[in-house]
Amino acid sequence: MRILPSFFRGAALASALLTMQGAAVLAQPTAVGSVRTAVNAWRRTHEREILDEAFALLSLPNVASDSAGIRSNIAAITAAFAKRGVVMKPMYAPSGGNPALVGELDARGATRTVMFYAHYDGQPVASGGWDGDPFKPELRKYANSVAGDAVALPAPGDTINPELRIRARSASDDKGPIIAMLAALDAMKAGGMSASVNVRFFLDGEEEAGDNHLGELLRAHKAELKADAWLFFDGPMHVSGAPQLVLGARGVSGVEVTFYGPNRALHSGHYGNWASNPAFAVAEFISSVRDANGHIKIANFYTDVMAPNATDIASARALSLTDDSLRTSLGLSHTEANNAALGERIMLPALNIRGIRAGGVGSSATNAIPTSASVSIDFRLVPNQTTAHLRALLNAHLKTLGYTVVADAAAVNNSKDRSRLAYVTWDSGYTSVRVPVATPVVQAVKRLMAKSYAREPFVLPILGGSLPLFHFVDALGATVITVPTVNADNSQHAPNENLRIQNLWDGIVVFADLMVGLGREWPATKGVVP
Amino acid sequence: MRILPSFFRGAALASALLTMQGAAVLAQPTAVGSVRTAVNAWRRTHEREILDEAFALLSLPNVASDSAGIRSNIAAITAAFAKRGVVMKPMYAPSGGNPALVGELDARGATRTVMFYAHYDGQPVASGGWDGDPFKPELRKYANSVAGDAVALPAPGDTINPELRIRARSASDDKGPIIAMLAALDAMKAGGMSASVNVRFFLDGEEEAGDNHLGELLRAHKAELKADAWLFFDGPMHVSGAPQLVLGARGVSGVEVTFYGPNRALHSGHYGNWASNPAFAVAEFISSVRDANGHIKIANFYTDVMAPNATDIASARALSLTDDSLRTSLGLSHTEANNAALGERIMLPALNIRGIRAGGVGSSATNAIPTSASVSIDFRLVPNQTTAHLRALLNAHLKTLGYTVVADAAAVNNSKDRSRLAYVTWDSGYTSVRVPVATPVVQAVKRLMAKSYAREPFVLPILGGSLPLFHFVDALGATVITVPTVNADNSQHAPNENLRIQNLWDGIVVFADLMVGLGREWPATKGVVP
Repeated sequence: MRILPSFFRGAALASALLTMQGAAVLAQPTAVGSVRTAVNAWRRTHEREILDEAFALLSLPNVASDSAGIRSNIAAITAAFAKRGVVMKPMYAPSGGNPALVGELDARGATRTVMFYAHYDGQPVASGGWDGDPFKPELRKYANSVAGDAVALPAPGDTINPELRIRARSASDDKGPIIAMLAALDAMKAGGMSASVNVRFFLDGEEEAGDNHLGELLRAHKAELKADAWLFFDGPMHVSGAPQLVLGARGVSGVEVTFYGPNRALHSGHYGNWASNPAFAVAEFISSVRDANGHIKIANFYTDVMAPNATDIASARALSLTDDSLRTSLGLSHTEANNAALGERIMLPALNIRGIRAGGVGSSATNAIPTSASVSIDFRLVPNQTTAHLRALLNAHLKTLGYTVVADAAAVNNSKDRSRLAYVTWDSGYTSVRVPVATPVVQAVKRLMAKSYAREPFVLPILGGSLPLFHFVDALGATVITVPTVNADNSQHAPNENLRIQNLWDGIVVFADLMVGLGREWPATKGVVP
Repeated sequence: MRILPSFFRGAALASALLTMQGAAVLAQPTAVGSVRTAVNAWRRTHEREILDEAFALLSLPNVASDSAGIRSNIAAITAAFAKRGVVMKPMYAPSGGNPALVGELDARGATRTVMFYAHYDGQPVASGGWDGDPFKPELRKYANSVAGDAVALPAPGDTINPELRIRARSASDDKGPIIAMLAALDAMKAGGMSASVNVRFFLDGEEEAGDNHLGELLRAHKAELKADAWLFFDGPMHVSGAPQLVLGARGVSGVEVTFYGPNRALHSGHYGNWASNPAFAVAEFISSVRDANGHIKIANFYTDVMAPNATDIASARALSLTDDSLRTSLGLSHTEANNAALGERIMLPALNIRGIRAGGVGSSATNAIPTSASVSIDFRLVPNQTTAHLRALLNAHLKTLGYTVVADAAAVNNSKDRSRLAYVTWDSGYTSVRVPVATPVVQAVKRLMAKSYAREPFVLPILGGSLPLFHFVDALGATVITVPTVNADNSQHAPNENLRIQNLWDGIVVFADLMVGLGREWPATKGVVP
């Protein structure tokens, strides 16, 4: 465990007094927003330095499979944290893979230890669509910019239009938060602010590559990774630009089901009203599992689903303020279930059709009965649902429809009963994780974010998409809260990924507020708060 | 109009007496099967010559797009018919294309003119699968043979195992019937048999290439092509080896319907239970148009469908004697509508799903809502159904489901109501044609086939597949009957196409019986039967 760097020590009490507010254990709350004021004042005179460091880091290719690129990122990040007095150490899974980088920053008298998660690897760079080298960062006027919109960096000491974007792979996903963490440490030092919790940095190196070694890594280093909470700095803020706090993520489980017809394609004229057509079977199957309002018709599907409570529903509805404009931008006059709120819908389990393949269409269409038809589905799971139960339910559903479920394609080839077989393959999947909104650390983070942004954050009870949060819950029993800091129009995973400058500036404030204030906003039931 | 070649003249009466039977206008029926006996006797001593001529013709590449190959076929076929006293003339469509070859052979005193249709072009030769050059014919032991199974030609005067196959492109589809026609003329001459109808030969040159010029060609030469009936020598005999007579073909009309979701693929976790998924829409659509027993659920679909009568149903059921073994060979334990007879099923209109495309499956699956989903369908039509009515019915069905039908993809791109659009495109299609079984010429051909094969032929009221027969009905008002002579396992359109020797021998008898007997079996209501 590292010793708090000397520059934090003297300032600890002063900064605690500057930043505390509303915490019962403290006698004298100080002015609201003082961390924000101090950080922003420091930042305004250091914009060029922050951007220089950002550009240097974003110039390093960081696709997880690129070993040389990953090594250069590890070296640069380790050096950057070392400059702030934090020793980053590589932490490996026993079977290998890119290491996580883990650093410790203890606070004098702190009773809480909080992990700050981000990832330093990035999405692969597809061949097309970028308006320049993804690893040559540039300032651009707009989110969807072109090469001619480039803007020069500010002179040292000058400020810059905060609506500009940094265009580079990983600008938002997920080096942006790392850059903000580093600047926050600088701003705290400059402003004489110290942390009130023991901070741990955990920078994942394989998030965009599927985190195949993560569960193993966490189990192998469980003791070193003990923490009272994990804060995840990943993903975008609300599409309206509002701050939001995400308390969990739906799980996901993918499945492909293949139905069969005759063992050779048959002429549709000679056999088309006689031999069963698997394209019809797949359509009937799809119609049997889900209705037009998204309700899943598989028997007993909802028996282990916990219905969202009134608070969750209210939170989710509050988030859905842009549903109408989103529909318009997507070319949809209406959405499912009578335009029910998006935020409310994603608290429910869901069944999505990823794709269907049968025979041919367009110029590939032939007057034939295809031999098989497949549907690929992803289920989104909510807390309490298990993938094992899901599998059992789908198998039972297929049996009710008259199918024999086979898990081996070879069993189909020699069957005399092909049209009664369903070949089912599942991917590994994630379960859902979720922290209740009433959890004290959730309320503490929410109060601090309200200070950072000078507005109340939305609370998203559960993210519609799926994150590998369950690894941390499974391996460590962690309490995981996601605190997005980057803009929603960041084009993550896509060409011309970008980070809005104001989101970077606000991210610095959020990190400082959390480090400085979390020990006060979230008092331990035992132990001493300084 | 050609004059009957001299060798037919003297023999005309004698052969008429030899071949007549049961025709009311003739005083003295002769022994059943006498044409068959005489033709087979002649053939037994000429097998080598017939095979030599067949091999020569099958050595000429005849893919419709191969102009040089087509020219050499025209020359060879014209020379072969000339040797039998028939002048073949090329007949062109005004806009070009390969000519049909048309020849005339008048019979003294005949009151009927009958067209014999075959086609001299062949299917393209796919790159793989052949066990030797498709245009180097060989004798083989089996239908699915390999190079080592080659058998030598018989010595002149010797006979050969009639189960052997001629392996070559077009052996069955459709040069086999042309070879049999030529041998039949030789056998008739040798046996002193003459035709009792005016025979016309019409050899199509673009059948396997879609017959794009055929309708135009027929309209341009309508006067020259006047005939009391057209006999089509194309397609295989019944799978059991039994002779069959085909009285029509279902029509076909292809359509593709595309449904739409959001205008960009959306993350299924973030939007999957909210934005409508076109893959689900396409499945619901398919389930709405057809039930699991093949019944078409589109409103009013059956209003213009003439139900098959009891005779037709009985004929169709009689044909379905191999349904069980066919199911077994296809890996199907059952077929639609409680294993209803294949022959009966194909008398009904049908809706076949040719293919479905939406999103991705397998390694192409992504957790996304696809932007569109398409289904390709072929409708099989029965007599009285029109493609115009079909289109109106499908449009009305889509409207009932809440869709706006668009025929222009551009209308979709800028729509704000994408999920309510259905983009519908139709191909040109064929209507169905059919001759009633009670038609006198049908009964006459049936009686003559019973003689040729010494067994009653099946009557297939309508072929499940679709043939361009409608061109002849549309352009000429023709009565069209199909008389298949080749083996069902001939691998037409596939590698190692073959013709069973016994089918070639029997074909010669059929041609002779029809030419010699049709004028007697099918007396004109006016005019003189010699």
